[in-house]
Amino acid sequence: MEKFEINILGCGAALPTPRRLSSSQIVNIREKLFMLDCAEGTQMALRRSRLSFSHLQAIFLTHLHGDHVFGLIGMLSTFGLLGRIQDLHIYGPQDLERVFQPQIDYFCADFPYRIILHEIDPRTPQVIYEDRSVTISTLPLTHRVPCCGYLFREKPTPRHIRRDMIDFYHIPISQINNIKAGMDWTTPDGDLIPNERLTTPSDPVRSYAYCTDTTYRPQLAELLRGITCLYHEATFASEHALLAKKTFHSTAAQAAQIALDAQVGRLILGHFSSRYKTPASKDSDEGISELTLLQEAQQIFPSTMLAEDGMNIKL
Amino acid sequence: MEKFEINILGCGAALPTPRRLSSSQIVNIREKLFMLDCAEGTQMALRRSRLSFSHLQAIFLTHLHGDHVFGLIGMLSTFGLLGRIQDLHIYGPQDLERVFQPQIDYFCADFPYRIILHEIDPRTPQVIYEDRSVTISTLPLTHRVPCCGYLFREKPTPRHIRRDMIDFYHIPISQINNIKAGMDWTTPDGDLIPNERLTTPSDPVRSYAYCTDTTYRPQLAELLRGITCLYHEATFASEHALLAKKTFHSTAAQAAQIALDAQVGRLILGHFSSRYKTPASKDSDEGISELTLLQEAQQIFPSTMLAEDGMNIKL
Repeated sequence: MEKFEINILGCGAALPTPRRLSSSQIVNIREKLFMLDCAEGTQMALRRSRLSFSHLQAIFLTHLHGDHVFGLIGMLSTFGLLGRIQDLHIYGPQDLERVFQPQIDYFCADFPYRIILHEIDPRTPQVIYEDRSVTISTLPLTHRVPCCGYLFREKPTPRHIRRDMIDFYHIPISQINNIKAGMDWTTPDGDLIPNERLTTPSDPVRSYAYCTDTTYRPQLAELLRGITCLYHEATFASEHALLAKKTFHSTAAQAAQIALDAQVGRLILGHFSSRYKTPASKDSDEGISELTLLQEAQQIFPSTMLAEDGMNIKL
Repeated sequence: MEKFEINILGCGAALPTPRRLSSSQIVNIREKLFMLDCAEGTQMALRRSRLSFSHLQAIFLTHLHGDHVFGLIGMLSTFGLLGRIQDLHIYGPQDLERVFQPQIDYFCADFPYRIILHEIDPRTPQVIYEDRSVTISTLPLTHRVPCCGYLFREKPTPRHIRRDMIDFYHIPISQINNIKAGMDWTTPDGDLIPNERLTTPSDPVRSYAYCTDTTYRPQLAELLRGITCLYHEATFASEHALLAKKTFHSTAAQAAQIALDAQVGRLILGHFSSRYKTPASKDSDEGISELTLLQEAQQIFPSTMLAEDGMNIKL
């Protein structure tokens, strides 16, 4: 199967710590890289990941809170110093231009590449990016400021040719693409060979949704129905459900309920409040650990895992 | 002696790497903290240093290049989330307000503390901060944009009381501060006891200068005469002296020449181009290491050391 991987650069909430950056990810689809959010320190995490800076196609910002955007200007500057020449497109909700264009004008003047900002309306789902291999659309979320998630949906790939049958029927090379696309074959004698005998089914279409930050939003499930993998914020444990509601965030259990309702393949939890200890922490045993978030989610949706900085997930 | 320490949070040049942040330091004078520059990632490095965020008095920016300021807005936001209430003063050359006030207005609205920007004229040396223990003044530098270094000069401390002599002459407590300040003592019998018999000399006055970024600027030595410790940028090795001149940076040898001319106590080199390998690097043996910078400087000024992220230097 073609590459479709998620690289988690940071999965902490508002307060970055030496152990966990705030939000940023790279979606790698057939070596085209798409960035989701860009917290402070993202460029260093990107370098650590050994992904190629120059393969970055576009950046998608969910909302203009600092823990999702403060790494942007530094990373854009570094791309300039490294001699990037391809245009770079950045998508985000309203105020994107108001906030970033002045910074770009001041710090990125005379750079060898163009930075193009695209303000999107996060209130209705819409396709905002499309190429040969993927369609990217927005997912309305409910947060304290305009905010949307992003849904990556692979385009269907051609059916796989059965080399043995092609040879057996002496089908010429010129017809291969038609057969991959599903056409039948008529032999010189007039026999019709159905496509199913010449090919095996194409790979299943994979999809990934990135949903942060948002209060519990049941209607989101409908847009996520049957997707391969969902990353959903789980800022709080159930014990802090009121705080989650007040700050327009979700609990791990609410994220799991969305995953269950949408019947997704698997759920990744992230955007953990820094009040919870990381599993690897050597801190005292007091207080709630992120493992509590995992348990609370798994009781509702077993195929759940915790995100971790530096994690690579193959879909 | 009272505390006077330098904490190096980052000492790389324009390109931050996972191994080395760009410029930022904390000067700790009697547990009052002063920040010099604030590159991306500074707040994480500050947290790693275990210095208390709340003891930060003021921030001094040398110039408005990204590798010296991109960590500012994130750190200010974190202070807000952590509930800082004391005013925070930020000093820097022209354009400080133009660049940062809009970001502060957007991201730091409703924070529980005030952020006060002070634009300074970096062309002439001037005292910009003073309290009971320290005087901070600017040092004109020559870079591609308006730029200044900063000189921290401890205020003289009182002479040390000789407790045994105070007891011997039955000097009342009320007179102690006068005697610390240098006054003699006249006994009830009319004998004059000279201050030198009642006290030992005060601690030597210490001073620290932070000079980055700058082209080689011989006249700087005069302003640095006899200071305890100089941090001077050494972006390049002598092999790249032309590049240094062209980009308005210094070589390690030029930094050492300034230290020699100024007869400073010791020299710390920093702001290393990422083209040079760090001493701890496991990279291949090809290319110049920062140890070359150290050797080139020490041939001119032996009391030289290389800065390192996380280093603590006691003056």
